[in-house]
Amino acid sequence: MRLSRYFLPTLKEDPKEAQIVSHRLMLRAGMIRQSSAGIYSWLPMGYNVLRKIEAIVREEQNLAGAQELLMPTIQPADLWRESGRYDDYGKEMLRIRDRHDRDMLYGPTNEEQITEIARASVRSYRDVPKLLYHIQWKFRDEVRPRFGVMRGREFLMKDAYSFDIDKAGAVHSYNRMFVSYLRTYSRLGLRAIPLAADTGPIGGDLSHEFVILADTGESEVFCHKDLLTFDPLAGDIDFEGDLQPIVDHWTSLYATSDDKHVPADCPVPEGDLVQRRGIEVGHIFYFGSKYSKPMNATVQNQDGEIVPLEMGSYGIGVSRLVGAIIEACHDEAGIVWPEAVAPFRVGLINLKVQDAEVSAACEDFYGKLRKAGVEVLYDDTDERAGAKFATMDLIGLPWQVTIGPRGLKNGIVEVKNRKSGAKEELSLDAALNRFAG
Amino acid sequence: MRLSRYFLPTLKEDPKEAQIVSHRLMLRAGMIRQSSAGIYSWLPMGYNVLRKIEAIVREEQNLAGAQELLMPTIQPADLWRESGRYDDYGKEMLRIRDRHDRDMLYGPTNEEQITEIARASVRSYRDVPKLLYHIQWKFRDEVRPRFGVMRGREFLMKDAYSFDIDKAGAVHSYNRMFVSYLRTYSRLGLRAIPLAADTGPIGGDLSHEFVILADTGESEVFCHKDLLTFDPLAGDIDFEGDLQPIVDHWTSLYATSDDKHVPADCPVPEGDLVQRRGIEVGHIFYFGSKYSKPMNATVQNQDGEIVPLEMGSYGIGVSRLVGAIIEACHDEAGIVWPEAVAPFRVGLINLKVQDAEVSAACEDFYGKLRKAGVEVLYDDTDERAGAKFATMDLIGLPWQVTIGPRGLKNGIVEVKNRKSGAKEELSLDAALNRFAG
Repeated sequence: MRLSRYFLPTLKEDPKEAQIVSHRLMLRAGMIRQSSAGIYSWLPMGYNVLRKIEAIVREEQNLAGAQELLMPTIQPADLWRESGRYDDYGKEMLRIRDRHDRDMLYGPTNEEQITEIARASVRSYRDVPKLLYHIQWKFRDEVRPRFGVMRGREFLMKDAYSFDIDKAGAVHSYNRMFVSYLRTYSRLGLRAIPLAADTGPIGGDLSHEFVILADTGESEVFCHKDLLTFDPLAGDIDFEGDLQPIVDHWTSLYATSDDKHVPADCPVPEGDLVQRRGIEVGHIFYFGSKYSKPMNATVQNQDGEIVPLEMGSYGIGVSRLVGAIIEACHDEAGIVWPEAVAPFRVGLINLKVQDAEVSAACEDFYGKLRKAGVEVLYDDTDERAGAKFATMDLIGLPWQVTIGPRGLKNGIVEVKNRKSGAKEELSLDAALNRFAG
Repeated sequence: MRLSRYFLPTLKEDPKEAQIVSHRLMLRAGMIRQSSAGIYSWLPMGYNVLRKIEAIVREEQNLAGAQELLMPTIQPADLWRESGRYDDYGKEMLRIRDRHDRDMLYGPTNEEQITEIARASVRSYRDVPKLLYHIQWKFRDEVRPRFGVMRGREFLMKDAYSFDIDKAGAVHSYNRMFVSYLRTYSRLGLRAIPLAADTGPIGGDLSHEFVILADTGESEVFCHKDLLTFDPLAGDIDFEGDLQPIVDHWTSLYATSDDKHVPADCPVPEGDLVQRRGIEVGHIFYFGSKYSKPMNATVQNQDGEIVPLEMGSYGIGVSRLVGAIIEACHDEAGIVWPEAVAPFRVGLINLKVQDAEVSAACEDFYGKLRKAGVEVLYDDTDERAGAKFATMDLIGLPWQVTIGPRGLKNGIVEVKNRKSGAKEELSLDAALNRFAG
C-alpha cells in the first residue's frame, strides 16, 4: 500500500480525551475514530489489525474442534425472559422496541440464543458433543465508557458454547477451550496466564479468566514467579485426547487477581510471589444446566433418559485485544506490533521522492516485496525525513527499510527493527532477501 | 468435515412459513434458523457460504482500489439530523435510546457516518480520490419481513463510498464500482445486468441497479436480447485507466425494470425485446454534494478554493446474495451451488459404514482430499442410502462421490455432478485426481 493513497489520518497531538496509552496511540495512529461515547469506527489500519487477530482466534477455534456460526446482534427479549436474565441484566443491556412494539435487545452475550438453537435440533447423545462459536459485535451500555476499545460499548467478541451429555464431557469441552486460549494468546505474541475466577453474572461451577501482563494493565495480578517462565503452548495438540494434564500444569501454581488475593492466606512464600499488572482478555465458564434447565434444552442419554444439556461458554474480547496488545507492546515513540498482528510487516521509507534514482529504487523494492507476498506500507509522500521516521515509529510496523540518496550511491539501505531499535546497513538484495527470501 | 460431527440440522418437511424457494431451501438445508421476524442465525453451512461470498466481494473491492474499514452498527441520531434524513427515514429506521436518553439508531446505511469521517481528515485535493467501504450488518425495520434473507430486517451489506474533488473524478469512481460489480457477480457464478435506476431515498444524479436473472425473481426486467449474450467481465482490468468504454458497452442496450418500462416508448423492436424475472443484488449512486454540503465536508482544490466533496455510494446485499444465488441455482431436489460459493466442493458418501473395507476406503479418500486442500463433507453417518443421496442433493455440493461395497470390489467409485446429474464410474485414484490433481 502506498501511504500517499492510504486512508491513515494520523494525529500530531495527543488527543486529550484519551486517558490510557492504547487509546491515545490508536487515535494518533489513525486506527480508530470515535462515533459516539464508547463506539468507534475502525479505520483501515485499525481494521486490518482487528481482522488479523480475528483470523488467529478463528483458526485456533477451528483447530480445537469448534464450529463457526453467526447469531444476529438483535435478539428477542422473550428469550431472556425464559432464562430469567431479562430483568436481572440492568441498564447495561441496550433495550429496543421495534415498530410493532416488540421488546428486543442488542445482545451483550448469547447464552440464551445458542441454547434456543441447540434445543431445536440436539435431541440425542449422538448429537453431542458440540462446540459452537461466533465472532460478532455485542453491546453493553456502560454508564461511563472510556479507555477506548478496551471498554467500549459496541465491541467484537468471540463467544463459544459447548453442549455435552454429562459433566465429564463438559469438562473436556472446557479443557479444549482452556488449551485453545493459551495457544491463541501465544500466537498473538502475548504471555497470558489463567486465573481461577468468579463466575459472576454468567453463573456456574468452574471458571478461569486469562490475563496478559502489561505494566499499564487495569488490575493487579498475584502469582508464583515460576508461572511466568512456563513455555508457551505451541505445536500439534490432540484436542480429542486427554487435556487435563495440560490444564493441571497451568493451574498448578498460585495465580489470582487482587480482589481475591488475601496476603495472610497466600500459600506462596513471599520471595516466590510476584505482583504484576494485567489485562483480562478472555473468560471461560462451565455452568452445567444453568440455562438448559429453565429453557428446557434436553437430550436423551444412552440409557434413554431425558437430561438437560451440560453447557459452558467461552469468550475472547477480540476488539479489546487490539488495545490490550498495544498496552503490552509499545514504547515512548509509539506502537510496537508483534509480527503476527502487525498491519504491515515492512514500512518502506523513501527519503527523497524528488530524487528519480531513489524513487526508482523504492518502486523496484516495493514491487518485489509485494510480488513476494510481503505486506508493505510504502511512504512515497513528500514529507520531511523526521516526520516520516516519527510516523513509522508511531504506527509500529516490525521492520523499517529506509532508502535515501547517500546510501543508495553505495547500494546500501538501512533496515531497522522497531522493537529493538537495532539498525543494519544492507545491500538492496540482502534487504530484499531478509523479507522475501 | 464429518457429517456425524457437523452441526447441520436439516429438515425433512417443507417449513410452512417459507413462501419462496430460497427461504424454504435454506431452512431445510440447515443453513439458517429464524431468531425473530426477519432476523436469522446463520448456522455453520449457511455462514460458510455467506463468508465465501463476502470474501469474493472483498477481493474485488480491494482490486478496484477501495479500502476497507468498519463503521459501527449503532450511530448517533445527531449525524442524521445534520443531513436532514433523521425525520425523513420513517419507521424503517430502528430508533434506540441509550441509558443516558441519547437518541441513537441502528444504521440502515452509512452516508452520514462516512461523511463525518471524511470531513474530519480529508482537507486537500491531495487527500482524494478515496474509495472506502465496509461490510457490516445493517437494520431496516420492515413492516412485514418475509422471503427469508432476501428481505430480512438484520442484513449484511457491503457499502462503499467515494470522495472526489470534482464530477469527473466522481464519475471515474462510479465507473470503478460499476466494473467491479460486474466482475463480482461473474465470479459468484451469476449473470448480472445493470439497469438505469431511480435514485430513491439516497438521492443523486446517476444510478444503476444490478439484477441477476432467476425464474423465481421478485420483479420483471425488460431488456434487449443481446444483453444476455455479453461476455462476462473477467481477467485483468486497469482500474486506474479509462473505464468509460466498458460502462458504455454495458449500458448501450435497453434494460429496465417493469415500473419504468413503457411499451409504447420502448426503443427495442418487439422481436429483440426479452422479458425476464430478476433479483436486485446491487445498487450504485453518484449524488455529488447531497451529503457533503449540508454536513460541511469540504476540500481545498488546486486553485485554493474550498469546495464540497463529490460523493457516491455503492451497495451489494451480501446476505441477500445467498438467497438470490439459490433462487437462480436450484432444482426440484434442492440447491445447486456454483463452485465459487459452495460450502464444500465435494460430498463424500459412505454407503455402508458397517463395512470395514468401505469405511477404510472412505477414510483414506477423505484424508487425501483434505490433505490436498479440497473442502469435503464426509457423510459417515449410518443413515440409509436414499436419505444420504437426498441430503446431498438438498445441500447442493457441486460434486458427490459415492463409495459402496459393490463398486469397491472392482475398485470403482461413483462421481456425480450435482448440476448436470451426470454420473461417472471412476477408479479411486482417478476420482482423487479429479479433485486433488
